[in-house]
Amino acid sequence: MQQKLREHIEKIVPLTDDEFAFVRSHFTIKSYKKREFLIQEGKSVKYAYFVVSGLLMLVYNNESGKQHIVSFAMEDWWESDFLAYHTQTKATMSLQCLEDTDVFCLSLEDYQKLCAGLQKMEHFFLRKANAGHIGSQQRILSFLTSNAKERYEQLLKRYPSLFQRVPKSLLASYLGVSRETLSRLAR
Amino acid sequence: MQQKLREHIEKIVPLTDDEFAFVRSHFTIKSYKKREFLIQEGKSVKYAYFVVSGLLMLVYNNESGKQHIVSFAMEDWWESDFLAYHTQTKATMSLQCLEDTDVFCLSLEDYQKLCAGLQKMEHFFLRKANAGHIGSQQRILSFLTSNAKERYEQLLKRYPSLFQRVPKSLLASYLGVSRETLSRLAR
Repeated sequence: MQQKLREHIEKIVPLTDDEFAFVRSHFTIKSYKKREFLIQEGKSVKYAYFVVSGLLMLVYNNESGKQHIVSFAMEDWWESDFLAYHTQTKATMSLQCLEDTDVFCLSLEDYQKLCAGLQKMEHFFLRKANAGHIGSQQRILSFLTSNAKERYEQLLKRYPSLFQRVPKSLLASYLGVSRETLSRLAR
Repeated sequence: MQQKLREHIEKIVPLTDDEFAFVRSHFTIKSYKKREFLIQEGKSVKYAYFVVSGLLMLVYNNESGKQHIVSFAMEDWWESDFLAYHTQTKATMSLQCLEDTDVFCLSLEDYQKLCAGLQKMEHFFLRKANAGHIGSQQRILSFLTSNAKERYEQLLKRYPSLFQRVPKSLLASYLGVSRETLSRLAR
C-alpha cells in the first residue's frame, strides 16, 4: 500500500526516501467493508481519504430522504466532505463503501503540518486542489449544457469501469435521472 | 489598487514589504470597459484574473448558440477558464465584463514562479483552490438537490448585490431557468 501512495505523489513531485518517510508518518491506514460508512451526515469529519483500492460514493440525502450521489471515488482518488473537513463543521454528506475499500487517512491537522513541513507536499496538494476545482467546474458545465443522454455518454467515455462496478440505480442518481430514464439511455 | 491585492492576500498570509514587492512583480494591471472580453472561446488563455473592481461573467456558448453562465466574478474574486489556463489549451469559455473592470493579471509561468519562490504564496493559492473546489462542490449539490426557486433564493441570500448589478436575463441563465420562470420566482 505504501508504494501506491508514493507512486501517486511522485507523479507530481519526486520524493527522497527520507521525505517519503516524513510524508508517510502523517497518514494512517484503514480498511472498510462494503456498505460501511467513512463519513456520516451530521457527524464530524476527521479525515480526507486517499483510496488505495475499492470504491466509495459521496452521498447527500435531502429532507424527504431522497439520495443524491455527488461523486464516486475509486483507486488513486481523494475524497471527503471537503467543506466540513476544511471548516471543521459537521458533515452534510455521507461517504460510503460500494466495495471493500482500503484508504490512507489524513487529518486536517496532519494535512496542515505536512504542507508546512515540506513545500513539495504543499505543491502536490495545490495541484490536486486545482484539478479538483477544474473537475467540478466541468461537471457544473455539464449540468448547464448537457441533457441526461449526453451526461450518460460523457460518464461512460470517461469512466467505463464504473458501469461494471456501480449498480444502475446509483448511476441514475449520479446523473440526476430516474432508473427508467437510465435504462432507456443505456439501450 | 496594490493595497487591495495586498489586503486580499494578507487575509490568509501576512507579508513583509519585501515579500509583497516580490509578489507584486509577478502581476500586471489591466482595465477593461463594459462588454469587453478578457478571454475569448477558442483563443489561448494567458492569465488568471484577480478582480479589483467591476464585474465579470464566465460564459459557455453551446453549439446552437445558447449562452450558459458558469459563474460571476466581482471584487476580490479570482476568475479564469481554469482548465484552459492550467493545461495551456484553448478556451472553451469566454470571460466578459458586465461593468468597467480593473484586474490584476497573473500568467501561468508567473503563478508557478511565485509559488516556487515564496511558500507563503503556494499556501495562499492552496487555500484559494480548496475554497474554489468546495464552492463548486456546493453548486453541484444545488443542481442535484434544489429546484429553480431554491437556487434563486440561495443566490439572493449569498450575493444580494448581484440582483442590483446583473440583468435578469443573465441571472436566469446562471440559474438554468428561463427569463419567464425567473420573473415568476422574483415576485
